[in-house]
Amino acid sequence: MLKGKDILSALDLEPDDIVDLMGLADRFREEPRSSAASGRIMTTAFFEPSTRTRLSFTFAMTRLGGNVVDLGPEEVTSRAKGETFEDTIRMLDGYGPDLFVIRHGQPGSAAAAAEIAAAPVINAGDGTNEHPTQALTDLYTLRREYGRLDGLTLAMVGDLKYSRTTSSLSYALSKFPNNKVYYVSPPQLRMRPEVLDNISGRLRYEEVERLEDVKEPLHAVYMTRVQRERFSDLSEYERLKSYYVLTPEVLLRLPGRPIVMHPLPRIAEIPESLDSHPQSRYFQQAQNGMYVRMALIVRVLGLNA
Amino acid sequence: MLKGKDILSALDLEPDDIVDLMGLADRFREEPRSSAASGRIMTTAFFEPSTRTRLSFTFAMTRLGGNVVDLGPEEVTSRAKGETFEDTIRMLDGYGPDLFVIRHGQPGSAAAAAEIAAAPVINAGDGTNEHPTQALTDLYTLRREYGRLDGLTLAMVGDLKYSRTTSSLSYALSKFPNNKVYYVSPPQLRMRPEVLDNISGRLRYEEVERLEDVKEPLHAVYMTRVQRERFSDLSEYERLKSYYVLTPEVLLRLPGRPIVMHPLPRIAEIPESLDSHPQSRYFQQAQNGMYVRMALIVRVLGLNA
Amino acid sequence: MLKGKDILSALDLEPDDIVDLMGLADRFREEPRSSAASGRIMTTAFFEPSTRTRLSFTFAMTRLGGNVVDLGPEEVTSRAKGETFEDTIRMLDGYGPDLFVIRHGQPGSAAAAAEIAAAPVINAGDGTNEHPTQALTDLYTLRREYGRLDGLTLAMVGDLKYSRTTSSLSYALSKFPNNKVYYVSPPQLRMRPEVLDNISGRLRYEEVERLEDVKEPLHAVYMTRVQRERFSDLSEYERLKSYYVLTPEVLLRLPGRPIVMHPLPRIAEIPESLDSHPQSRYFQQAQNGMYVRMALIVRVLGLNA
Repeated sequence: MLKGKDILSALDLEPDDIVDLMGLADRFREEPRSSAASGRIMTTAFFEPSTRTRLSFTFAMTRLGGNVVDLGPEEVTSRAKGETFEDTIRMLDGYGPDLFVIRHGQPGSAAAAAEIAAAPVINAGDGTNEHPTQALTDLYTLRREYGRLDGLTLAMVGDLKYSRTTSSLSYALSKFPNNKVYYVSPPQLRMRPEVLDNISGRLRYEEVERLEDVKEPLHAVYMTRVQRERFSDLSEYERLKSYYVLTPEVLLRLPGRPIVMHPLPRIAEIPESLDSHPQSRYFQQAQNGMYVRMALIVRVLGLNA
Repeated sequence: MLKGKDILSALDLEPDDIVDLMGLADRFREEPRSSAASGRIMTTAFFEPSTRTRLSFTFAMTRLGGNVVDLGPEEVTSRAKGETFEDTIRMLDGYGPDLFVIRHGQPGSAAAAAEIAAAPVINAGDGTNEHPTQALTDLYTLRREYGRLDGLTLAMVGDLKYSRTTSSLSYALSKFPNNKVYYVSPPQLRMRPEVLDNISGRLRYEEVERLEDVKEPLHAVYMTRVQRERFSDLSEYERLKSYYVLTPEVLLRLPGRPIVMHPLPRIAEIPESLDSHPQSRYFQQAQNGMYVRMALIVRVLGLNA
Repeated sequence: MLKGKDILSALDLEPDDIVDLMGLADRFREEPRSSAASGRIMTTAFFEPSTRTRLSFTFAMTRLGGNVVDLGPEEVTSRAKGETFEDTIRMLDGYGPDLFVIRHGQPGSAAAAAEIAAAPVINAGDGTNEHPTQALTDLYTLRREYGRLDGLTLAMVGDLKYSRTTSSLSYALSKFPNNKVYYVSPPQLRMRPEVLDNISGRLRYEEVERLEDVKEPLHAVYMTRVQRERFSDLSEYERLKSYYVLTPEVLLRLPGRPIVMHPLPRIAEIPESLDSHPQSRYFQQAQNGMYVRMALIVRVLGLNA
């Protein structure tokens, strides 16, 4: 039961809730119009720009017949004010939204907001920490492909150290039996130790440096973007972003005809020549995210749908 | 029948559709409240700022009881992302809007979006190329004044080379018989050759350098703004923007008591002393644009109204 | 009767209207959902950023079931356009909003907009001049605390010269008998003479330099933010902002156990150590503002509620 709950980490999601959300997302895919959230207000507070995630939530709430009030672009709202994050959340909560969706550059910021807010808080990405609704989106994409969430083998490729999507997806996969992940990254961008601690014993994994090192059949190869925002040294960024690029040739050599996933936006790591490839799923994945978020909003608000 | 059609160029508009839109716009002027678009979502994607056009569409959709989801200001959405225009449109289209309204600095960008998007696309201005809904707005203003769309003589004044409103209006006027246009501009800002090619044989025109050279009675004088955005050399901009200014004295000397039109925003080319002049129509013109867009949205979505 | 009226200055508010608004605000506090404004459109035009006020109005209108169309952030809308304020208001008014909410840095700008617009205009802050809806918010906060709006003694502290909230609150308090204000500020930030002229004979006041100089029991101490935007010389700003800070110790020494009020956002002038203090009301005050604005919107639009 997710009603009234904060959605801060994929670690908090129960397998039953996940499966329930997937079923509800399927129903919204069948019948996209709804008035389940009529009269409700969702506040989106993005202290770090994320057009895709913000619009995915905005479309989801709008399609449910609900209202969205956006805090506005950070450069506008923060200008010459110097108000603390806590005061901003407290102010917004006083206006009585039914739901918060928060993106912030600081790990733990969504949890901090949940401490303050009376309304439930959905973490839409807190720094390099977590992005649980992206993990639900990814699970939904896998489930639509394979009809199950267990016994799957994935390769997560690229910037794992700074990627919140791969950590949240790892946590989500660890909720189901017999899944395995290959973490494919350069040494300096390896998955964070605390993530490995959180999944150890529940999700098998191997750390390798090149996709070529993956010998098992894969169900999915999950590419990640090397985000410029994460680097103080731009030359370091330039060097790394060209590191792991999934060309049709590389994809062809991977065992098991894996589907290709990516949280988007993609830059160089997936060439456009792959867009029409039969194994590509990253655009469907983005669309799936909206249906999953419709389902999540309905459950957290405890609406009839 | 415009249902499901992309509205990319004034050249594609059929006279019957234009006349139908004008009649529907008149009805919305009589009865401004409607719920025809209830439950529908229009996405506005302005990759180039245009407050007036964006708000005109936003009011139109809101007055129809529909929802608007805006991509957000370009400087926010594009920041540190490097996503392609095509990927952004594909992402948005996946969220399932019923309609796109797109503004972009690149000629042909709306057409490119229409290639990708499942939802119909309305071109809200693609660089110096076209602005078909402004053309419909202008036709509607002329029709309200003269009760017809044929046998009209206009002078289009100022920056014709970089103006998409004058090219789209020329295309729209070329759909009806016996119209004529005087293109009044400095030599370096003359109407683009491809526009003259597109209208030749269907719309009579003369190119002159000064309003004083117009000897025929005019139904309307259409002023245009010299847009700073279009100039790399600001001094060149400063010199040209003061070129053609419509003072009450100049207007008085024009034959035929023409109404004064302007796509707005106006800067120096129309002094405020003209705002209360009996021949001025530019503010009514802006208002007309909203009614025309209500009508266009209804027809493209195939709504009952 | 406020129906169709512009709300430009707290001086224009009649005691009967104020009391009626407070009662209606109480009702909205009891029953926050309403569809009173269904089908109506409110336009928010903030030429100066003010997230808090803009969102307070946006939540208010949304909770009433109405629509909000925002002009957008000033840096976007004004960019490379050079359109006058008057033209922008005239354009927006042509689109037919039912109500304007305007914030602008120039004193008198809301009044100028009201001259142009057919729709009623609510002044959401015009430079250092006035902020009448904040005054209503403050009165409502006092009334909820003391059950009356007369016979109250307040201390207004800090930047009084540049503060529109303290001038508007002074005007509002002057509408009711036996109120008194201590203006507590450094000499160079004293309350503006024209404000003292407007209240003289109707609101008793004393000007002092330190809270310690207040000898009467206080019902409320009203802290203000020293706004960086107001200072050309930043060092002057740094020196003054640390001037009057309300620490728990200072508060303890004030006679009469006053409640602590602040228009927010607060920076250094109220330490977080005071947030949980039994006399603190500044966050409730922010929440009160939304209920008061719901009531004001209903009355100005003449809606049934």
